[in-house]
Amino acid sequence: MKLRIKNLNWLAGRPVAILNDNTAKKLNVFANDRVEINNSKKVYAIVDIFPKVIKNGEIGLSEELSNVLRLKNKSYVKVRTSELSDATHLIQKKVAGKKLSQTEITYLISEIVHNNLTEAEIAYFTAAEKLNGMSIEETIDLTRAMVKTGARLKFSGKYIADKHCIGGIAGNRTTPLVVAICAAAGLTLPKTSSRAITSASGTADVIETISNVDLSINEIKTIVKKTGACLAWGGSLGLAPSDDKIIRVERLLNLDIEPQLLASIISKKVAAGSKYILIDIPYGKGSKRTTLKKAEALGKKFKLLGKSFNLKLKVVHTKGSEPIGNGFGPALEMLDVISVLQNKFDQPKDLREKSLFLASELMGLCKIKNSKKKAEEILSSGQAYEKFKEIINAQNGKNNFDKKVRDLHLAKYKKMIKANKTGRIIEISNKGINSLCRTLGTPETVSSGAYLHKHVGKIRKGEPLITIYSESKTKLKEAVEYLKEFKPIKIR
Amino acid sequence: MKLRIKNLNWLAGRPVAILNDNTAKKLNVFANDRVEINNSKKVYAIVDIFPKVIKNGEIGLSEELSNVLRLKNKSYVKVRTSELSDATHLIQKKVAGKKLSQTEITYLISEIVHNNLTEAEIAYFTAAEKLNGMSIEETIDLTRAMVKTGARLKFSGKYIADKHCIGGIAGNRTTPLVVAICAAAGLTLPKTSSRAITSASGTADVIETISNVDLSINEIKTIVKKTGACLAWGGSLGLAPSDDKIIRVERLLNLDIEPQLLASIISKKVAAGSKYILIDIPYGKGSKRTTLKKAEALGKKFKLLGKSFNLKLKVVHTKGSEPIGNGFGPALEMLDVISVLQNKFDQPKDLREKSLFLASELMGLCKIKNSKKKAEEILSSGQAYEKFKEIINAQNGKNNFDKKVRDLHLAKYKKMIKANKTGRIIEISNKGINSLCRTLGTPETVSSGAYLHKHVGKIRKGEPLITIYSESKTKLKEAVEYLKEFKPIKIR
Repeated sequence: MKLRIKNLNWLAGRPVAILNDNTAKKLNVFANDRVEINNSKKVYAIVDIFPKVIKNGEIGLSEELSNVLRLKNKSYVKVRTSELSDATHLIQKKVAGKKLSQTEITYLISEIVHNNLTEAEIAYFTAAEKLNGMSIEETIDLTRAMVKTGARLKFSGKYIADKHCIGGIAGNRTTPLVVAICAAAGLTLPKTSSRAITSASGTADVIETISNVDLSINEIKTIVKKTGACLAWGGSLGLAPSDDKIIRVERLLNLDIEPQLLASIISKKVAAGSKYILIDIPYGKGSKRTTLKKAEALGKKFKLLGKSFNLKLKVVHTKGSEPIGNGFGPALEMLDVISVLQNKFDQPKDLREKSLFLASELMGLCKIKNSKKKAEEILSSGQAYEKFKEIINAQNGKNNFDKKVRDLHLAKYKKMIKANKTGRIIEISNKGINSLCRTLGTPETVSSGAYLHKHVGKIRKGEPLITIYSESKTKLKEAVEYLKEFKPIKIR
Repeated sequence: MKLRIKNLNWLAGRPVAILNDNTAKKLNVFANDRVEINNSKKVYAIVDIFPKVIKNGEIGLSEELSNVLRLKNKSYVKVRTSELSDATHLIQKKVAGKKLSQTEITYLISEIVHNNLTEAEIAYFTAAEKLNGMSIEETIDLTRAMVKTGARLKFSGKYIADKHCIGGIAGNRTTPLVVAICAAAGLTLPKTSSRAITSASGTADVIETISNVDLSINEIKTIVKKTGACLAWGGSLGLAPSDDKIIRVERLLNLDIEPQLLASIISKKVAAGSKYILIDIPYGKGSKRTTLKKAEALGKKFKLLGKSFNLKLKVVHTKGSEPIGNGFGPALEMLDVISVLQNKFDQPKDLREKSLFLASELMGLCKIKNSKKKAEEILSSGQAYEKFKEIINAQNGKNNFDKKVRDLHLAKYKKMIKANKTGRIIEISNKGINSLCRTLGTPETVSSGAYLHKHVGKIRKGEPLITIYSESKTKLKEAVEYLKEFKPIKIR
């Protein structure tokens, strides 16, 4: 069918062709179907249907598509429903339980990067990865393909380092602390982090409460050169861009797809130019790996992957059965981080200890002697705090750290919940705390969240248990009900 | 986040919330993500991003969403990224290899019907169905849920009958012939068919060359009452509507998902009110079931399913290793059908014989004695032709059958290909013929396609092999190249 072009100058994030509902009916396509646009070359696009903007017989092109086709408004192109692409055949192959070769994986990933696959097709691929498994060779090829199809960073320091926790623990905001300590010790840390997916807050959300995190590749280069580190949001950098697309599809079901987890983490480290990598795999009830054995099995795969990319990679296993830190929610977690950096008397001890442990392990990996003692000194002396300020000021482009911290505030409405009996807190659920915070408005409302007064251990009736914060009275009420109904904190 | 409503009076086919790109960034959602809209009740919607229509701070509602929310323009709603719904937990369960209960399957299917799941989530479900399998109990529950969530038809005749071929054979346009013969024999056949997915043409595409096929439920009732049968397009009737949504996702990868195939076919027959059902499962190289054994294994499941819905169901296995009929493409297949109905000397014998076989089997199932002889008589005497005319005229609402048939024409450009040696045609590929026709422009261009002069068997050099038709010279050339390169017809 011949259709008249209308360039929409609209960045859709993928090549989208917009049709009128009548035209779509004639072509027998629905929203999210794929069409083939045939000019001198064949181009594929995802269909969207929108009658208000596009007339009968017209095809609206998103900017991604305009840039490839380079045709004027009102010129004509041939459009038809698309046959299966080569990449869909590869997904079929994986669904059929067969192994993919390096060339095949590279092609598949490049098709994902170029938006030639729909999300449902990517879902089939990840489902097949999960259910049919991927060999370690395939995982290595996948990682390599993910690096190859994206931007890369390169730094001149001797020790380009990074740490990563596979997640699942509420709070656990060790990254800013580890980065500050290790950068103060002389390591180079081009750290990129994600926003929250199902948790109360991601590292990028926390840093954003006082800092710009949406940095360009060039800004990262400048900041890391100047301060030795950065704390950027990884989402728009284009390091391993296929990963961002695959994660969007994975998170729909919140699936734990091991080959993808491995490739995702390692590809981003390699793309960022890191060589010395510490991986934290927590274990225990309520974390992603329920037993040490399971955590170690995953750790083994990380090591194999690290070897094939010539990384100095170390895996540690920490206790993951309860939240780490006192504050949960962007602002509350930032306050925790600052109180540790300032060595305050009421700082969360568990967060401090875990951060020191991770920092000293990473420093040890980078051949720093007496790393445990050194990390402790750097933190206690305030050097880590100074380094953190320096990084944030560099990211903001002005020396406004103190003002930003002063401006941090917690939500208007709050309620302190006290223990209703004397006994022992036997469990604090990671998922429960995250859901509680989501109910209160995190991560969108950065001032909302929860403050935990006690961790697992003894408690007396009437002692403060948790304080919840929200900008909305209704949400505060809903959160109180959530606490009563789901009991994320169990006292016995 | 609070957003201002803009009702778009636009039927999107699913509940879509349109955001401006800035708002989407703030909410941390992408196109195809899900948001929760919280008014007095919680409603879920799929996000689309479109800056030209929607301002910052606005949320555009598709009609599906407007109808549920019933709020005026410029009123405010609370919008947030959506947590996993209950149905996604059920998909997780299936991905984890667990069995779903009847209640769970019913809920999942109703969530699909109400558009509360994204296509990627449906893809995970069908992938899990394929890779983890479904028990026969689950398949029965699935079928029941698919019937329950859609419209149903009821007819008063004694023998409400239907036939179905699982597909995969090029041409094979037996449906119009079986329906005409059996309706002339007194059976009631509320037949609905689909359009082409990967083939040159679907039954609905073929019938549409001379008839209206986009009928409403009420029109079908009237037509079937008057003529004993119909030949409608099933796509917009709302019989087992979840099936239409699932098929869209399945066909992305052209996966053969057995539980879904079984449930899809049986649910539509039950919803259409049919009781006597003939299932044709072809076997052989190049068909969907490559051996008789595999075809029989599937047949067994059809019988189990038929039993639990109190159907009189018979399975037949026909030879599926080469195309059936001479014409391929909407108009060419209609000409084949008419030449059989008219008992023309050059009619495709294989199509005639297969249709007679299926018709007599279905008539036998409905207790008609000497069904083989009777079917033959009805076809030879022209009674089937008269019945076919009656059905088409009823669907068109006027007696224009003869004019419609006279108006049928083949494409402007054609080319006859002759055998380049004397020998034997050893293979004609179903897939190859379909791809050839797609290259020529089917099913969009109804006049295009191919005419096969010879089937498997002896051939002499210079004898006509196949004639190809297209409205485009370029496509004709491409098709000639396709024939040379992929050799869908093999002579030895």
